Amino acid sequence: MRVGILGGGQLARMMALAGAPLGLRLSFVDPAPDACAGVAATPICAPYDDPAALDRLADGSDLVTFEFENVPAAVAARLADHATVYPPPRALAVGQDRLHEKRLFGELGIATAPYRNVESAGDLLRAAEEIGLPALLKTRTQGYDGKGQRMLHRPEELAGAWEGQGGVPCLLEGLVPFEREVSLVAVRGRDGEVRYYPLCENTHRGGILYRTLARPGDPLQEAAESYARRLLEALDYVGVIALELFVAGERLLANEFAPRVHNTGHWTIEGAVTSQFENHLRAICGLPLGDAAPRGHAAMLNLIGELPDTAAILAIPGAHLHLYGKAPRPGRKIGHISLQAEDAAVLQKNLNRAEALVPIFY
Amino acid sequence: MRVGILGGGQLARMMALAGAPLGLRLSFVDPAPDACAGVAATPICAPYDDPAALDRLADGSDLVTFEFENVPAAVAARLADHATVYPPPRALAVGQDRLHEKRLFGELGIATAPYRNVESAGDLLRAAEEIGLPALLKTRTQGYDGKGQRMLHRPEELAGAWEGQGGVPCLLEGLVPFEREVSLVAVRGRDGEVRYYPLCENTHRGGILYRTLARPGDPLQEAAESYARRLLEALDYVGVIALELFVAGERLLANEFAPRVHNTGHWTIEGAVTSQFENHLRAICGLPLGDAAPRGHAAMLNLIGELPDTAAILAIPGAHLHLYGKAPRPGRKIGHISLQAEDAAVLQKNLNRAEALVPIFY
Repeated sequence: MRVGILGGGQLARMMALAGAPLGLRLSFVDPAPDACAGVAATPICAPYDDPAALDRLADGSDLVTFEFENVPAAVAARLADHATVYPPPRALAVGQDRLHEKRLFGELGIATAPYRNVESAGDLLRAAEEIGLPALLKTRTQGYDGKGQRMLHRPEELAGAWEGQGGVPCLLEGLVPFEREVSLVAVRGRDGEVRYYPLCENTHRGGILYRTLARPGDPLQEAAESYARRLLEALDYVGVIALELFVAGERLLANEFAPRVHNTGHWTIEGAVTSQFENHLRAICGLPLGDAAPRGHAAMLNLIGELPDTAAILAIPGAHLHLYGKAPRPGRKIGHISLQAEDAAVLQKNLNRAEALVPIFY
Repeated sequence: MRVGILGGGQLARMMALAGAPLGLRLSFVDPAPDACAGVAATPICAPYDDPAALDRLADGSDLVTFEFENVPAAVAARLADHATVYPPPRALAVGQDRLHEKRLFGELGIATAPYRNVESAGDLLRAAEEIGLPALLKTRTQGYDGKGQRMLHRPEELAGAWEGQGGVPCLLEGLVPFEREVSLVAVRGRDGEVRYYPLCENTHRGGILYRTLARPGDPLQEAAESYARRLLEALDYVGVIALELFVAGERLLANEFAPRVHNTGHWTIEGAVTSQFENHLRAICGLPLGDAAPRGHAAMLNLIGELPDTAAILAIPGAHLHLYGKAPRPGRKIGHISLQAEDAAVLQKNLNRAEALVPIFY
């Protein structure tokens, strides 16, 4: 089967490496001539919205999928005209606008922090009054890795804040004090079968994911699965999805979902029976899903901006290196380390050792 | 680091898929324009002994390795002139001649079946008299997957038998009744560090490996490791080696070694902490070796000649598919299935289910 991917970064690369053993032939569209998915997939070097390139990708593929969610509706529609597209374009459309996303969460009974739509300076003043400060002003579209977000602490910061975000549609989100940031990676097949990976706990630095710890047996697993199931079914979703959540006391609040394989699922390559990349491909190809159960205890550290001493990393028991073939640059995700151990205490010890080796990128 | 591989078949392919996450850039020489390693490595399409291609491979690589052992000495020497070559050419030279291999086993105190060198029809008669029949007449070089072997049961079969093998140097090997065929895959780093995978039990059909079962805790593990250690040290070996052995009562007899990643090590991709492919690359690149410990119980089935119903295979819990991107052809290895389970009884049940799906290729 031939699978086309819109985007040729590390997510496409890891999909391609997982797809080769399944006998899939992968190609991708990416404007970068050195797009790192090229290591195991055929590149079509063109802008993401180039009609000829999109037609070539779709015509040369039985299925098309995405490595990012900010796909313009016209692009998704053009691809869908020529090939079967998963996840469904509606999931992309909902996922790329924070307002639609939050509204869908609300309709499905998935709890969130309070929020208000902000399309003018006046909206912002009213919103701040209603939900209080501190609050986060986020652009409704195009935000990732903390970009397009601004924290507002005091009323005097409201003036000009919306204009400072470019005067584009925003959300103001109430800041709920939370103890943990967690995410649930799940996968749904074409036949509606769903598998859930264990909940994982995520730590960010400067708005960018730094560390993920898989938490098999987390008491919130069931609640998170219930949220994810509602979302997957409402969207008639096919493929891997990631649901990012805050744990505030007893409450599990949905932050956002990503309709794709996700950085907080990278640990599954070694840490689960079937990786998120393999399961995404199995799902969209209509193949039986693989077991999402964890194998022992697992963690992941992102490598951002610069490489650690890779030999020292590989000397850590149960450590694996995943480099993306990307040139180092400040703030750029260039790889990750996965760690796996049968014993939780051993994992923690090895994780400490790895963290001490990873350059800090604040 | 840039790694060149002589050969672009499935072993090179799986090395390339394991090498990308390590940040390695791989290329290979293979005469087939559709060599299956091309999925994740840069092909140089040329005969294995093409001097210009060998120079191009070696000049474009920091290290060169091999996916098969029948490398002509002149080829290995040419590569070694331009690049660092692992495993050492001496291991290739010894491994490709059954007489030198058996003599080395003998020097190292590694038990084997009785054998005699046969370079004439007269040699064959004397050899048969000394070691008895039945016995196996094998060409000293170029044999693999049961090719170049002939079983001799009765004295009247001796006449013309050596000529029937092409009149090339042969060994006559006494047939020792054995209960099990096992193999030990091991890896040695540039610094002399050695890791051993668990012994595995192998079943052949028509001379071709069909099934491998990993046997962690096998009582012969220590004896097999002792054999492998002697061999690795004598050859000052770097990389993965596979030692094939017969279990005859209490005795462990070495049959042959393969100076490369090995079909009986394919289960390590999912079944061990570090796969044989990753560990071979770590070893030759001078990186710390990864843990070779098993993860639960594991088995592997070769797919030969034709594909099974892949969806039915993937529906088996803990099953993974590894297709090589090769056109099906009778007797051709086109992929393998790996199976993994925490529980030995569960593995056996799933293995039975998989075996029932795999076409028989006698």
